[in-house]
Amino acid sequence: MSFTWINGIYKKDSEASLHISDLAIQRGYGVFDFFRVRQKRPFLIGHYLDRFFNSAERLNLTVPMSKSSLLAVIHEFIEKNELTDYGIKMILTGGYSDDSYTPAKPNLIIRGHQITPPAPKKYQQGIRIMTNEHQRGTPECKSLDYRQGITLLPQLQKKELDDVLYYFENKITEFPRSNFFMVDQKNRVITPARHILEGITRNVLITVAANHYSVEERDIFLDELPNAREAFLTSTTKLVMPICEIDGSKVGSGVPGPITKHLSALMNQLPSDYHLS
Amino acid sequence: MSFTWINGIYKKDSEASLHISDLAIQRGYGVFDFFRVRQKRPFLIGHYLDRFFNSAERLNLTVPMSKSSLLAVIHEFIEKNELTDYGIKMILTGGYSDDSYTPAKPNLIIRGHQITPPAPKKYQQGIRIMTNEHQRGTPECKSLDYRQGITLLPQLQKKELDDVLYYFENKITEFPRSNFFMVDQKNRVITPARHILEGITRNVLITVAANHYSVEERDIFLDELPNAREAFLTSTTKLVMPICEIDGSKVGSGVPGPITKHLSALMNQLPSDYHLS
Repeated sequence: MSFTWINGIYKKDSEASLHISDLAIQRGYGVFDFFRVRQKRPFLIGHYLDRFFNSAERLNLTVPMSKSSLLAVIHEFIEKNELTDYGIKMILTGGYSDDSYTPAKPNLIIRGHQITPPAPKKYQQGIRIMTNEHQRGTPECKSLDYRQGITLLPQLQKKELDDVLYYFENKITEFPRSNFFMVDQKNRVITPARHILEGITRNVLITVAANHYSVEERDIFLDELPNAREAFLTSTTKLVMPICEIDGSKVGSGVPGPITKHLSALMNQLPSDYHLS
Repeated sequence: MSFTWINGIYKKDSEASLHISDLAIQRGYGVFDFFRVRQKRPFLIGHYLDRFFNSAERLNLTVPMSKSSLLAVIHEFIEKNELTDYGIKMILTGGYSDDSYTPAKPNLIIRGHQITPPAPKKYQQGIRIMTNEHQRGTPECKSLDYRQGITLLPQLQKKELDDVLYYFENKITEFPRSNFFMVDQKNRVITPARHILEGITRNVLITVAANHYSVEERDIFLDELPNAREAFLTSTTKLVMPICEIDGSKVGSGVPGPITKHLSALMNQLPSDYHLS
């Protein structure tokens, strides 16, 4: 059976609700985080918990328990849960506000989400993406704001594209839910450094890649894209996904390259208790 | 008794909730609008309905009924409602999403909100504000995104200030929930033209003011503020609120000026069936 934990109480998933005075509903005010569960273990949980608490602090919200208590709840949740390949989402909202604007006691939600992995052929062939000029507000904070990404979904569907890469003032930042990497003509692995959400998978990949390649975190300008030999994205659910086409132009030879494949294999082999030092 | 209308059903206010799979909770995805009810009449309702439908369209959301049907529901809601000085908020969310990202059938909520008017001395003395560099995304759309404004609340409280005026690249835009006006040394009434939500009260004020003063909609630069003789904000709930201090500097003589008072009086005298042609 599927269930949701809200403020310390387990509810049937179908009965998990928030009163409409909650600031997420009234003002989109809240933060969240999402991690995978592998073999009953919350993968990289220490990093996800750190980011969740940092995001909350950025919005002046207080997680109503300590990290260790929240971790205990997560372990309990995993024991009770009957999903197999899934992730856990934690949402912290601005709470039930009297005046629909001033934050109140936050609501904390923990819920399992079945993961539907991308089709294998996406990994084999790479995905096709477009770029879009947009800068998310407070990008370093994993807030609920996905307005631009969701608004662009019909356009992606119409063009039969898989995702959208944001840029702002000619500098590439990130995807709505993933980080961007490119491999240049000298086989350097490069990823944007600023105005992004630092993905946990991104940070792990940087560490893993640095054992084999030169890695640079820096601004990437739009006009560098034609010189990319390879490109890929990283995310919690997709890990390493090759990119074969950007705005109608092939990346490199148009098929996933050797460095992308190598890094993808390395990321897939990480043990379930992996932790960045 | 207080109640809420959700998707065609009246609920006790205390029982009005949304399932947590709603995209407002998962992704802050939704739009809203808010209008006053005066003497059982929805004030300027045609304009608010137009904006609500435009905001929805901007986010590819469909209001699940025609404007005239929604107006009929609003009139019914007002008949049933027992609040006196209040406004009605309409919220349209991205709906109960299977994958927590793709919009589904939108949820439409109609709810009465008691209005607590600002203390009379605020109108007599004017409010004290600070500026903050920020540009809302899709500002022309009345989305749920109030992250920056709410995040700044503790700072306003600490400094004992009333509100925050956004600017971006040295150009003034708007308040989180109000529009900005200034009166220059030649008694021109000036308000920002771009990168803002066009308030209904703002638009009415422009029309009303144009009968008496020269009115300009144009970019206002930060360094014009010291030359302002008067300044005020407009909003649905506050109508015309004088501003006496910006970032610690007095506006003009530091008390509400004659043009602000005149415009405030004119706005307070609008008949309850007023409509912009």
